[in-house]
Amino acid sequence: MRIAIVGAGALGLYYGAMLQRAGNDVHFLLRSDYEAIKENGLQVFSVNGDFHLKKVQSYLAAQQIGEVDLVLIGLKTFANHKYNELVSPLLGRQTIILTLQNGLGNEETLAEHFGADRILGGVAFLCSNRGEPGAVHHLGEGRIIMGEFNSLDTSRAEKIAGLFCAAGVPCRAVQELKKARWEKLVWNIPFNGICALMRQPVDALLRHSGTRRLVIDIMEEVIAAANVQGIKEKIKMSLAQDMVQFSEGLGPYKPSMLIDRLESRPLELGAIFRVPLEAALQKGIKMPKVEELYALLDLGEAKSIA
Amino acid sequence: MRIAIVGAGALGLYYGAMLQRAGNDVHFLLRSDYEAIKENGLQVFSVNGDFHLKKVQSYLAAQQIGEVDLVLIGLKTFANHKYNELVSPLLGRQTIILTLQNGLGNEETLAEHFGADRILGGVAFLCSNRGEPGAVHHLGEGRIIMGEFNSLDTSRAEKIAGLFCAAGVPCRAVQELKKARWEKLVWNIPFNGICALMRQPVDALLRHSGTRRLVIDIMEEVIAAANVQGIKEKIKMSLAQDMVQFSEGLGPYKPSMLIDRLESRPLELGAIFRVPLEAALQKGIKMPKVEELYALLDLGEAKSIA
Repeated sequence: MRIAIVGAGALGLYYGAMLQRAGNDVHFLLRSDYEAIKENGLQVFSVNGDFHLKKVQSYLAAQQIGEVDLVLIGLKTFANHKYNELVSPLLGRQTIILTLQNGLGNEETLAEHFGADRILGGVAFLCSNRGEPGAVHHLGEGRIIMGEFNSLDTSRAEKIAGLFCAAGVPCRAVQELKKARWEKLVWNIPFNGICALMRQPVDALLRHSGTRRLVIDIMEEVIAAANVQGIKEKIKMSLAQDMVQFSEGLGPYKPSMLIDRLESRPLELGAIFRVPLEAALQKGIKMPKVEELYALLDLGEAKSIA
Repeated sequence: MRIAIVGAGALGLYYGAMLQRAGNDVHFLLRSDYEAIKENGLQVFSVNGDFHLKKVQSYLAAQQIGEVDLVLIGLKTFANHKYNELVSPLLGRQTIILTLQNGLGNEETLAEHFGADRILGGVAFLCSNRGEPGAVHHLGEGRIIMGEFNSLDTSRAEKIAGLFCAAGVPCRAVQELKKARWEKLVWNIPFNGICALMRQPVDALLRHSGTRRLVIDIMEEVIAAANVQGIKEKIKMSLAQDMVQFSEGLGPYKPSMLIDRLESRPLELGAIFRVPLEAALQKGIKMPKVEELYALLDLGEAKSIA
């Protein structure tokens, strides 16, 4: 299968590398890593075993890639205004677009640009970081839950999921993409948000009784908002406790939003905070603690004194 | 009147200087400013006109001062465990203790140590900062509202208030000290809290629509909690809007808690957050946004990554 990777951060590089290693015809649209990968290939340091791809098809412009069967989007959501420039040249009539981006609103925007029927969404549970140029670190997890944006039929998603499974990435097709998206937000909103705001890793939040309680409070707000979004099978409130317990095992893990802030990049506040808050409000639900976290994070996008 | 100033930060130095200039017999219990003030006296830079006190009675231990008529306490509340050491040597049978400290719980702790009948509390609306050793900057305001801790009788408070008025400090005795304390918290909790957390001055919070809204939300939570504390005349919800409008005039003012954080001192979280949250909970009232701010500030007392 001819595949284009758009947005080759840690997530795009890792999944692209896995797909290429399994024999797919993968094309990477790169920016900062272009020179390093062109010269030395792509190095994956993984908890499942390191590997190196010597020859990587890398490009600086989508036009050089041309039409593909599958576009995998791993862009930071604050770059979504570039969809047209980066994705249009890759599309034929049958091309499928799979976005693995964070938060809400990405499928909707892609659908507006390129038509709803070709859009799949996937929720990636992946702990990974960029390394030196040309290297990516896979620290744990990696599974993907994916589904159609515009249909409850899972046959196409199953085909794509099979592609990932064959490449060693646990992947499952589901009818309710929306539920999976919200479940990920239950984790992302408190941990990405508080870690980024406080410049502290996951374990620091869990060690402190006040922020541990706050994480759970926020998770419960998000679950309550999720359950009025028209999903069929409700999310249980106990997911909050389960997720906190699971997160104990992550140790000093730095969520992507914390890394963005430490590296002075913009944060993905639209997809992870603004759109979910709007979706909740539209159903008459307030998330006061999420609202507060969003305001503080957004203020922090300006500069502080010290 | 023989007066001792305990806790000679900006507030203690300023009010002590005003009282001495008016002819009172003022004794300053000092620490960091001792050498500078002993040598060069005390310099007040004030919006109402600068002045210099050449001769200042300064001490490093309360025993050297001995018994006084009035003890004025301006300690940071995180130093309240030193009450015994710093205050006991100053007390005779008739000595009055006036605490001008921030937040809730100070009168209670003083009453436990030294008896409830001698305790007055005052709420100081003062914009001031320390300068170089031996100097204090009075940036604006300065009025005090004071009352008895253990009685609704205002006669003694009126006498002390008169002392301040005669020294050029607008001062008013009230029956309900508790109401005045909570009214100050309506301002202190959001502005001290968010400014310290975000390391940003007052005007930065008000310019950003998200944090401006958050300031008002938090003020409304505090007003709701105040109004179930058994105060006779309720605080109007419109105080929130009034205070925000007033605060526009403060420009890039740095509240004391922000200065504490910028200078890596501990924050007054007990008196300004923990005790008010407990008092609200005891009356069955939740302040979710205050709770969140407290958790984040308290986590921040640990070190951040970057």
